[in-house]
Amino acid sequence: MALTRSPLAPKRFPTLPAIAGLSFATAACGIKYAGRPDVCLMVLDPGSTVAGVLTRSKTASAPVEWCRAQLPHGRARAIIVNSGNANAFTGKTGETSVRRVVEAVAAGLGCRRQDVLAASTGVIGQPLPTERILATVQGLAGNATPDGWEDAAAAIMTTDTFPKGAVRHSEIGGKPVVIAGIAKGSGMIAPDMATMLSFVFTDARLPAGLLQSLLRGAADKSFNCITVDGDTSTSDTLLLGATGKAKHPRISELRDPRLAAFRAALDDLLCDLAQQVVRDGEGASKFITIRVRGAASHGGARRIGLAIANSPLVKTAVAGEDANWGRIVMAVGKSGERADRDRLSIAIGGVRVAAEGEVVPDYDETPVAAHMKGSEIDIEVDIGIGRGRATVWTCDLTHGYISINADYRS
Amino acid sequence: MALTRSPLAPKRFPTLPAIAGLSFATAACGIKYAGRPDVCLMVLDPGSTVAGVLTRSKTASAPVEWCRAQLPHGRARAIIVNSGNANAFTGKTGETSVRRVVEAVAAGLGCRRQDVLAASTGVIGQPLPTERILATVQGLAGNATPDGWEDAAAAIMTTDTFPKGAVRHSEIGGKPVVIAGIAKGSGMIAPDMATMLSFVFTDARLPAGLLQSLLRGAADKSFNCITVDGDTSTSDTLLLGATGKAKHPRISELRDPRLAAFRAALDDLLCDLAQQVVRDGEGASKFITIRVRGAASHGGARRIGLAIANSPLVKTAVAGEDANWGRIVMAVGKSGERADRDRLSIAIGGVRVAAEGEVVPDYDETPVAAHMKGSEIDIEVDIGIGRGRATVWTCDLTHGYISINADYRS
Repeated sequence: MALTRSPLAPKRFPTLPAIAGLSFATAACGIKYAGRPDVCLMVLDPGSTVAGVLTRSKTASAPVEWCRAQLPHGRARAIIVNSGNANAFTGKTGETSVRRVVEAVAAGLGCRRQDVLAASTGVIGQPLPTERILATVQGLAGNATPDGWEDAAAAIMTTDTFPKGAVRHSEIGGKPVVIAGIAKGSGMIAPDMATMLSFVFTDARLPAGLLQSLLRGAADKSFNCITVDGDTSTSDTLLLGATGKAKHPRISELRDPRLAAFRAALDDLLCDLAQQVVRDGEGASKFITIRVRGAASHGGARRIGLAIANSPLVKTAVAGEDANWGRIVMAVGKSGERADRDRLSIAIGGVRVAAEGEVVPDYDETPVAAHMKGSEIDIEVDIGIGRGRATVWTCDLTHGYISINADYRS
Repeated sequence: MALTRSPLAPKRFPTLPAIAGLSFATAACGIKYAGRPDVCLMVLDPGSTVAGVLTRSKTASAPVEWCRAQLPHGRARAIIVNSGNANAFTGKTGETSVRRVVEAVAAGLGCRRQDVLAASTGVIGQPLPTERILATVQGLAGNATPDGWEDAAAAIMTTDTFPKGAVRHSEIGGKPVVIAGIAKGSGMIAPDMATMLSFVFTDARLPAGLLQSLLRGAADKSFNCITVDGDTSTSDTLLLGATGKAKHPRISELRDPRLAAFRAALDDLLCDLAQQVVRDGEGASKFITIRVRGAASHGGARRIGLAIANSPLVKTAVAGEDANWGRIVMAVGKSGERADRDRLSIAIGGVRVAAEGEVVPDYDETPVAAHMKGSEIDIEVDIGIGRGRATVWTCDLTHGYISINADYRS
């Protein structure tokens, strides 16, 4: 299926720097797609720490279950990823596939199989073509190079129309550190988790427990605040590897003030990647930012934001460039969160359209209609009852989504 | 907007009998649509009891709030309904509109305003054209006739492509009773409540509290088990009026065995109406029945069923006639309900496709592919961990849904 690059895509893939202690190799195994790389190996130097956030799906894929079992060790030497087949709902066969692939990678690197993490994305319910992957994987480590970011980002794509990457330069205790990462995902995108796959790396030297806390916090403000279609994947995997090559002072406490800049940079990078996933939402023609404030709590604000973001009626109204704020009212009402119709106010494109339970006096739709014709749509909702805030990102629901999904598998 | 009659529609509107003590009148007020009736008055004889189930939206419409205040009295002499404008998110103006319309109806009938219930459906956030409705409503009661069922069903339609009605004949204590009703709704259809509007009447003589219990139970198995797009209306209203003209023995207990047949008939009638709403789902080309069993509880089974029914990826797969059961696995996983991947089994069109966590051995897609080409799709899911059961109905998600909703308001 040849998909046109999303109109919301960034101009180009960013220049991502090599990270000391990290290298990549990709290969074409013909798992589903012909003539394109579909396997990616990411190799980390010994001593690297790792953290991860995985899908909460009750029908998680075999590689997700593998990661869930290994992540508590907090160590990783490699991540092996394939696209085209999710290895989900493949029973014991699927578990065996993961173990065999992981063992082959471990043999190539001379490490323990527990230090190899795995991720798969693609069709659910079909056995992984394990033999073909094994044949490729054995020699893959030998080809790994430090500057394979864009190839890696491309190899993990499925219905994505562009590879996704981001970088942030930061410091810890005055010493430079870098964070860079890639992501893929454009459908079956919803919180807990929100992207199908994302791999982020840094040269910082941080214990695994600390890394895990930083990653969880950053994911909650980024990948867990985006939605394309409200569907949660069986395969969602976000991993953060730290090679420890940077020369900063030892940090052991999450509250250490020297960690503040790094934390902000990680939050920002994950937001960037998460928003790129939305910008590649299946069939998306508009990028929608929903800011909710005045809710009873931050969590409540996020749930209201996601109720709006997941409403097919709101999403189709945006697709139709219709400032149909009544559907936003409906979505607030269905969220189940505390709200008071007579305190609710709504702005679109910075123009207040409704307040205190009704349309504003002398509402002039002209500037709002002009805003709706753009490709970046801003919706602000003030619930008016508390101090809870959240920002959520989504895209519109178009004929393109139907076209892509009504015959994705065939 | 001229909409083509849904391909899933029944052949014709059923013949609904007159119910002693009930009459209808309709009129064209030009609220939104030109040249078609958009106001309907239903008149009940003195002594009638009433029950209702209303939307749980936190931004409910003014008429819903009116009904919520009046229903505890358990009495009604009339229901006044308009289509084309929901009178939702219209602030104090909206409340005043309801009161004035209701007072005009009460004056015409010579009853108290508390005995007049109201419902509105259509665009949110625009003031009701109250004067125009008032001018019409005053003389309306004089035109009421007992056999106006189909006109009433047509007057309350918005994006519906066919009027919806159903009848069941039953008995209480050996004496015949009849139940008949109408419904409208085709988008913004999701549980709690599921239809936008439905009005059901019987000649049974039942106290309001009993009627309320019967209606709540029947709604949970019908309107609360359907979904078109997961969006919950601000206006959902289901009312059941009982004129008390039937000559059956007095019933005062819900457990009275003489009520069993009536209860079954009411359940069945509500299921019929609810399914007609799904059959008119915006853009629907396939009617989908999802039977879930083996869940931890009945409630859990319903939530799993609705997670499947609301999944855009499942709905588009059905639209594409693709037996993509992997998306069903995904939806079970995202429901949040207890599930065990390795106990889950799935059948489509009566053919088992997956069991014990993977595709069945020697799976032959041929009969399943043939089933997917039909317009009635059956999905069965056995969670394999308990005795919870539920049946949920929905429709597919097609280009038609996008076309209808990307410019409904304009």
